[in-house]
Amino acid sequence: MRDFLPDDVRRREYVIGIIKRVYERYGFEPLETPAVENIETLLGKYGEEGNQLIFKILKRGEHEGTGQADLALRYDLTVPLARVVAQYQSKLPRMFKRYQIQPVWRADRPARGRFREFYQCDVDSLGSTSAAVEAELCAAMSDALMELGFNDFVIRINHRELLTAILTRAGVAAHQQNDALIALDKLDKVGPQGVDGELANRGIEEQARNALLQVFLRDANEADGLTRVAAFVGGDETGQRAVANLQAIVGLTAQTNAAGKVRFDPSLARGLSYYTGAIMEINVADLAGSLGGGGRYDNLVGMFLGQDIPACGFSLGLERILVVMNERNMFPPTLATTPADVMIATFDASGAGAAMGVAATLRQAGLRVLVFPDAEKIGKQIKYADSRGIPFVALLGEDEIKAGTVTVKNLSAQTQATYDQSAAGAAILEGLKRRG
Amino acid sequence: MRDFLPDDVRRREYVIGIIKRVYERYGFEPLETPAVENIETLLGKYGEEGNQLIFKILKRGEHEGTGQADLALRYDLTVPLARVVAQYQSKLPRMFKRYQIQPVWRADRPARGRFREFYQCDVDSLGSTSAAVEAELCAAMSDALMELGFNDFVIRINHRELLTAILTRAGVAAHQQNDALIALDKLDKVGPQGVDGELANRGIEEQARNALLQVFLRDANEADGLTRVAAFVGGDETGQRAVANLQAIVGLTAQTNAAGKVRFDPSLARGLSYYTGAIMEINVADLAGSLGGGGRYDNLVGMFLGQDIPACGFSLGLERILVVMNERNMFPPTLATTPADVMIATFDASGAGAAMGVAATLRQAGLRVLVFPDAEKIGKQIKYADSRGIPFVALLGEDEIKAGTVTVKNLSAQTQATYDQSAAGAAILEGLKRRG
Repeated sequence: MRDFLPDDVRRREYVIGIIKRVYERYGFEPLETPAVENIETLLGKYGEEGNQLIFKILKRGEHEGTGQADLALRYDLTVPLARVVAQYQSKLPRMFKRYQIQPVWRADRPARGRFREFYQCDVDSLGSTSAAVEAELCAAMSDALMELGFNDFVIRINHRELLTAILTRAGVAAHQQNDALIALDKLDKVGPQGVDGELANRGIEEQARNALLQVFLRDANEADGLTRVAAFVGGDETGQRAVANLQAIVGLTAQTNAAGKVRFDPSLARGLSYYTGAIMEINVADLAGSLGGGGRYDNLVGMFLGQDIPACGFSLGLERILVVMNERNMFPPTLATTPADVMIATFDASGAGAAMGVAATLRQAGLRVLVFPDAEKIGKQIKYADSRGIPFVALLGEDEIKAGTVTVKNLSAQTQATYDQSAAGAAILEGLKRRG
Repeated sequence: MRDFLPDDVRRREYVIGIIKRVYERYGFEPLETPAVENIETLLGKYGEEGNQLIFKILKRGEHEGTGQADLALRYDLTVPLARVVAQYQSKLPRMFKRYQIQPVWRADRPARGRFREFYQCDVDSLGSTSAAVEAELCAAMSDALMELGFNDFVIRINHRELLTAILTRAGVAAHQQNDALIALDKLDKVGPQGVDGELANRGIEEQARNALLQVFLRDANEADGLTRVAAFVGGDETGQRAVANLQAIVGLTAQTNAAGKVRFDPSLARGLSYYTGAIMEINVADLAGSLGGGGRYDNLVGMFLGQDIPACGFSLGLERILVVMNERNMFPPTLATTPADVMIATFDASGAGAAMGVAATLRQAGLRVLVFPDAEKIGKQIKYADSRGIPFVALLGEDEIKAGTVTVKNLSAQTQATYDQSAAGAAILEGLKRRG
């Protein structure tokens, strides 16, 4: 787990700020849940591997010695949402659209862009099965990424029920379909031969393997894979309903900023088991793994409520977005990297009171002001301001204090001028504007 | 631990936003540390009671069965800061001023404004022993509280070394001084007789008890308690140095927004053991307990670094601030309480594509837009918008879609008008402005 020093925090806050504003323009409302959940809420929701990766908290007090855990750290933001929807059903609107930007914890082996504590930026729409829900999620993701400066992303889309129909049509028995999906999900990583080997290991017959690889090995330039796959699943009713759903979603996104970004990909499977309908994932060329992903999960809330509520969500991976933005140098030059706009320096301890007063005046003008706290040699103080990248130093000597003035030094231009203390703020703001 | 539904999050974000801006005007930079620390980092830093209240995390994998804990949840923001300063010393400036606004966890019994997960808003200055540091902290707290709308707070101030001098002068032996402080800290809660009894229980002689109560029982209208206490400690050098330090701090704050808010209180002790100099606490009349507190702790970083770095900090209690602001109704009416400015309603499913396009246009204009996802009866859709407090509904019927227009309904004024789709955004913004 990592510490975030000031420049890291500023970059993260910049990205979170943009994502929040976009989510709010789509009518999503903020929700926050505690870092800690009852352990039963989390266990069994993320598969066997997930159970292993949950951080578990020891019982307190006299029970501590038993070594038992009753609480656990949040593992994602979707299961807590399902709990909240079940718990506050009467206080929440019939169609609840929420965003949630909070850290989650997984006892995973760290890797590039993967940490044991990381932020998720989730949006979820509950209460409707309409294709407009998926389309709006794609549009919101596109808006967020485009406002961050991404233009080269692709939103891959597929459908869980279409996958089932393909597998059935290819002759994979129902009890082998999960295994087959796990193997097929690795197509990008291990290639067709690797997948074929893994399918064989999992006991899938040769004929079925060949049929599957033919469907999943799309031509990158294929204009309309969906039509081809629809033909493959033929008269399978569930499959055709899934095809129609995907067509509706893609059609609706054409009216939004996601136009041209959404691409059908029959090999997209997504790891989590709770998806029931459309699934989506965002990729850019220079990052293995995705910038985010999501899908429809109409049964998860039912695990808490005893009554299903349709739901569809999307999660952006903040750390991965930051990795790519850092590498591509995508942060605006206006993002603050200094602790202050101006530092106040005094010649001796008797100037401290005047420094407080001038600092208050400059802050009132909207400036970020650092008061150098000790009466060190003035040259040393100016050097300190320079080393911190602070562009202006306001000097308070005996003359200035007597006259109610302040001498403002522009460190990069190496110029200085003396102002009335009440006028110095405007002069510094003007100087900052000229520096751009 | 609590969930924060949308209105709760908005109120908290409002308060955090103001506090952040004020901290940044004082040259504090943002820092964030992980929720989880190594257990050794935390144990032994908060006293025996603190150790009990730390949430401990089970070892993972094969060690899980041992019941041993190797990690723990952050208990405050000061100890992680000390760790960071020791760990990144070469990357941090000589005088590091940071703010940190993150949740901490304590396995405490919940009470009004006290929770097991709560946010702290900390500012700390490292690297200087100047009284200007304390004065600026008082000024920053005052600015933050005043911008939030508080005007009736008092910043009580005292000094750990002055307390020691008073106890010594009263005849309390060195090994009894901690006990005496714990008893005296309850003066506000249990009154002078209660404190006297507790002092007696802890073996403090009657003469010392009488002397102590005389010093600590200040007259509420006393103009200059510091002079009286300074006279009591007499020639004690440490005591007189503490008095001079307090005078310097109070004198400097007179030049800031904290003028008149800072009041010497000899009975202020503060619980934490790591304080070494000035200590401060903020109170308002309608809250038992404080809105925040802090002080100087010149030795804590040394516990991690092996070399002392002077430090002084202040922590605002976000949950208590929120409790009082909710009770006093201090939130601005402009704070959003609705999911959207406008909701788009369509008459049937064929309008969904047009709805996406109009939503994109309205969002581009800066509006928060909800698209009603299902083709329910139009009256039902409008009712839904009204129930959510959404002020405008944009209707897209067959005629509107054909003509490239949209009919905008103002739900409170019960008026409606039809606009070109490209002009509707400006009209709705104008309508929102008129509503105020």
